[in-house]
Amino acid sequence: MHDKHPNSSWKAKLHKIIYEADTPNGRLFDVILLIAIIASIIFVMLESIKSFDARYHNFLNIAEWIITIIFTIEYILRIISVKKPFKYIFSFYGIVDFLSTIPKYISLIFLGTQVFIALRALRLLRVFRILKLARYLGASNMLANSLKASRAKILVFLFAVFIVSIIFGTLMYLVEGEASGFTSIPVSVYWCIVTLTTVGFGDITPVTPLGQFIASFIMILGYGIIAVPTGIVSAEYVYQNKGRLSGTPTSPAVDLNTESCPNCSAERHKDNAKYCYNCGHSLSDYS
Amino acid sequence: MHDKHPNSSWKAKLHKIIYEADTPNGRLFDVILLIAIIASIIFVMLESIKSFDARYHNFLNIAEWIITIIFTIEYILRIISVKKPFKYIFSFYGIVDFLSTIPKYISLIFLGTQVFIALRALRLLRVFRILKLARYLGASNMLANSLKASRAKILVFLFAVFIVSIIFGTLMYLVEGEASGFTSIPVSVYWCIVTLTTVGFGDITPVTPLGQFIASFIMILGYGIIAVPTGIVSAEYVYQNKGRLSGTPTSPAVDLNTESCPNCSAERHKDNAKYCYNCGHSLSDYS
Amino acid sequence: MHDKHPNSSWKAKLHKIIYEADTPNGRLFDVILLIAIIASIIFVMLESIKSFDARYHNFLNIAEWIITIIFTIEYILRIISVKKPFKYIFSFYGIVDFLSTIPKYISLIFLGTQVFIALRALRLLRVFRILKLARYLGASNMLANSLKASRAKILVFLFAVFIVSIIFGTLMYLVEGEASGFTSIPVSVYWCIVTLTTVGFGDITPVTPLGQFIASFIMILGYGIIAVPTGIVSAEYVYQNKGRLSGTPTSPAVDLNTESCPNCSAERHKDNAKYCYNCGHSLSDYS
Amino acid sequence: MHDKHPNSSWKAKLHKIIYEADTPNGRLFDVILLIAIIASIIFVMLESIKSFDARYHNFLNIAEWIITIIFTIEYILRIISVKKPFKYIFSFYGIVDFLSTIPKYISLIFLGTQVFIALRALRLLRVFRILKLARYLGASNMLANSLKASRAKILVFLFAVFIVSIIFGTLMYLVEGEASGFTSIPVSVYWCIVTLTTVGFGDITPVTPLGQFIASFIMILGYGIIAVPTGIVSAEYVYQNKGRLSGTPTSPAVDLNTESCPNCSAERHKDNAKYCYNCGHSLSDYS
Repeated sequence: MHDKHPNSSWKAKLHKIIYEADTPNGRLFDVILLIAIIASIIFVMLESIKSFDARYHNFLNIAEWIITIIFTIEYILRIISVKKPFKYIFSFYGIVDFLSTIPKYISLIFLGTQVFIALRALRLLRVFRILKLARYLGASNMLANSLKASRAKILVFLFAVFIVSIIFGTLMYLVEGEASGFTSIPVSVYWCIVTLTTVGFGDITPVTPLGQFIASFIMILGYGIIAVPTGIVSAEYVYQNKGRLSGTPTSPAVDLNTESCPNCSAERHKDNAKYCYNCGHSLSDYS
Repeated sequence: MHDKHPNSSWKAKLHKIIYEADTPNGRLFDVILLIAIIASIIFVMLESIKSFDARYHNFLNIAEWIITIIFTIEYILRIISVKKPFKYIFSFYGIVDFLSTIPKYISLIFLGTQVFIALRALRLLRVFRILKLARYLGASNMLANSLKASRAKILVFLFAVFIVSIIFGTLMYLVEGEASGFTSIPVSVYWCIVTLTTVGFGDITPVTPLGQFIASFIMILGYGIIAVPTGIVSAEYVYQNKGRLSGTPTSPAVDLNTESCPNCSAERHKDNAKYCYNCGHSLSDYS
Repeated sequence: MHDKHPNSSWKAKLHKIIYEADTPNGRLFDVILLIAIIASIIFVMLESIKSFDARYHNFLNIAEWIITIIFTIEYILRIISVKKPFKYIFSFYGIVDFLSTIPKYISLIFLGTQVFIALRALRLLRVFRILKLARYLGASNMLANSLKASRAKILVFLFAVFIVSIIFGTLMYLVEGEASGFTSIPVSVYWCIVTLTTVGFGDITPVTPLGQFIASFIMILGYGIIAVPTGIVSAEYVYQNKGRLSGTPTSPAVDLNTESCPNCSAERHKDNAKYCYNCGHSLSDYS
Repeated sequence: MHDKHPNSSWKAKLHKIIYEADTPNGRLFDVILLIAIIASIIFVMLESIKSFDARYHNFLNIAEWIITIIFTIEYILRIISVKKPFKYIFSFYGIVDFLSTIPKYISLIFLGTQVFIALRALRLLRVFRILKLARYLGASNMLANSLKASRAKILVFLFAVFIVSIIFGTLMYLVEGEASGFTSIPVSVYWCIVTLTTVGFGDITPVTPLGQFIASFIMILGYGIIAVPTGIVSAEYVYQNKGRLSGTPTSPAVDLNTESCPNCSAERHKDNAKYCYNCGHSLSDYS
């Protein structure tokens, strides 16, 4: 798909392997990283199960160190293979990569601190980097387009849900009172969201006839207004699907290229692009 | 956007600031009011938390007084800047403004009366006044049009849900009886609404095999008929979206103007309108 | 809307009042009946509340007798005003009318028998008879058409839900066993329907890791497949809406007429119909 | 619909009866099998109810033996009537048929082993074989087409739901901790799926204000994103429905034929097909 670059140094080769997926080595790199990410998530989960951690603590510790070293190497390689390292370091993925590598090192200093589980959970965000597969891009592009086009409507809807929850939450606090578990307005609003979204935990339930009547109203309201976001997104999808019928695609899914600019790390270049659409740098010049 | 009005008095200027949002002062007024409303809601909520109220009672009291004074000033300014004050006072927003200002004054007379929390909750309704932002209007207009167009169908649907709930509630009362918590028909109907809307609190659950069988039927029914309001609203949105494709908008979102008539307070004038569409009064005459 | 019939006897007049709603008397009759039906339902509900029944037993008893007498008169009038009484008596509405009148009389013989509450609940079915209002007919016609057109697909879907519930119910019975409340396969299937329809009572919940994993799968499945009936009905509504755009209605809502045949009681005649579309009898001949 | 085959032996006749449904005998065979399958499922369920099994153990045992013998005969007939028996035996339905027949025989050897209930549950899968009815095929074809066309989008959606559940599950584990029932990350992820899918069992519920705030966010998220799969499937159905309007069906439902190849058992041949589309064997040659 790409010509051999006469000026490709080891840096250029490294960049191709790490940031792209259309060479055998690039694909191998992505697969290894994907496995490391999934293994890392499973180990974090298993570690949280007390009985499992007690029995296999050493195994989990070693496995975590191996994964941390893999992520460390990846992080260093990404920095040295990109032309403007600081641009990568302070990019979204750069920060995610850093945060998902650091927890194990910090645990050496502050032993047993639970907060770093959260940092390790950030490793999950790396998964999205692997999702550069062509056929999924088309699907998620359409999904993203639908959500973007109906963003304003969905915000109005969510705001309305929030207003309704505050009004009815306050009302239920007055009607039911603390005896039924509606101990404060925030708790009542929480209950109202639980009811309106048809989740219905049942940890707090109305007991007075008036409270049950208002709850019934909230439930039917929640059951009815779910139609609104569904209608919005459905209509948006139908609209986006029109392209398939008329022949003129409304969301052209042509960005199947996995190349990435060696200068500014911009992605989604056209397949026959010679220069970066973002910074104008030659896509084959890694000097 | 608007010419300088040669006959604009301080009243006209005030009207422009308070009722419109397309001058810097008008926008500042709206932002201050929005902050006051949100702060007011948060303070009402915090006050309902016993432990918080016990510790910061004085702070909450002072904050409530500050907000009440802001709302009082706003209310008075609105009355004196409008040409027909009584029309404003007895309008929907006039009553909301009054009800959201009065509770703190009343609390001086009747100390600690809980009912006034409800009145203070009405302050939330003011939020809608701020929503005069252009891009949201388009979205909520389409939403309102969809709901208006499918009103009759939704009413028939809600009526059907209600009938089904009464029939199955009565049936469950007969089948399960008081031992399982189905203590009366109204409670059974409440349970049936909880089940049909897929909320499922679990405070009352069937225990007899026949009761569980009927409950299963109600659940599958509720799971199935949620398709009906969704289908109605989806079809309506698709219909409204047609305009975007064919070029002739079905719901013209041209009312981006935030001007308001100095005579009758009507809103949503066309951008180039010189006279109020509602009362025919000149939009620039504040005499 | 209708010509004066020269041969209209008292029977014809009665038929017009009882079975139609386009004369002042006919509308009055419908309104009285609607009030009686709603009152009757409310009294049945109130009677089931022990504390209310204990205090107002006599009032409820008298009210029930008044409503029963109203229904008895209506039933007799319907029989004598129709040309073929047996056709009415054994029709759906004839049976409903009979069953909703009889319980109070039977209660004279068998005192305090609870089963007759169910019979009285049948009075609710009468409500549908009043729904002959024109604008609602249009809406419910479209609703009925949508459901009729997508009947086969919905049946396949419900059958699939049932099969899935039996398979996963059996699986959960094996995995969780009786200790977690999954006491038998029917109970497990009931739990599976509760979970799949996203109701989630919480009376029975999985406790083993494997059970929770399977439950997660069932929940995501239920969350995902709700899209299927919704999609079916949405598409059907969009299809039915097409008529509104192209000018040729797919579901002509012309049957706004409330007239009813004096011979065979068929309803929904065209406005200018002179003869019954069902039996060919003259619509104005009540001899 | 089919010509008399001059070379039809008893094998060919048997094949016609067992594998097809367009002869009276073939239909009778299908009906008997359908009744046996349903009876078998009901008996398995009843057997799991301890009190029922204790009283009617002998009856259930005999009934199970009768059904097992019916299934055994069917299995043997299928093997001898098909030209390539091994192809049938190792096909999906062949394995299902075998697994649904064997449990009772195994129970003679290993008495009272519970695992075989699962095997018996597989009998349910046979039900799908009977679903060769023409009008349902059209419906389920359209359903299958819709799901197939939107497969990639639904996978992206389910993957997103899974990622969200892991992130928020980990977060809730950190916020709520073991005191509230969030004993480990896997349990927290399970709770997050319960909440996101709006099931809401209520066996585990957040108790801290921050936990309830995050839970509210998850619930509104779950309430909102249900619009995504619904929108995808709705749009797909609308697209598939287009054919009905324009006259050119997008999903031609012509495979109403219940014939099955005597050589390779392939189904869904065109009505006028003379040779199997799969193996090229003559559809009327059973030699």
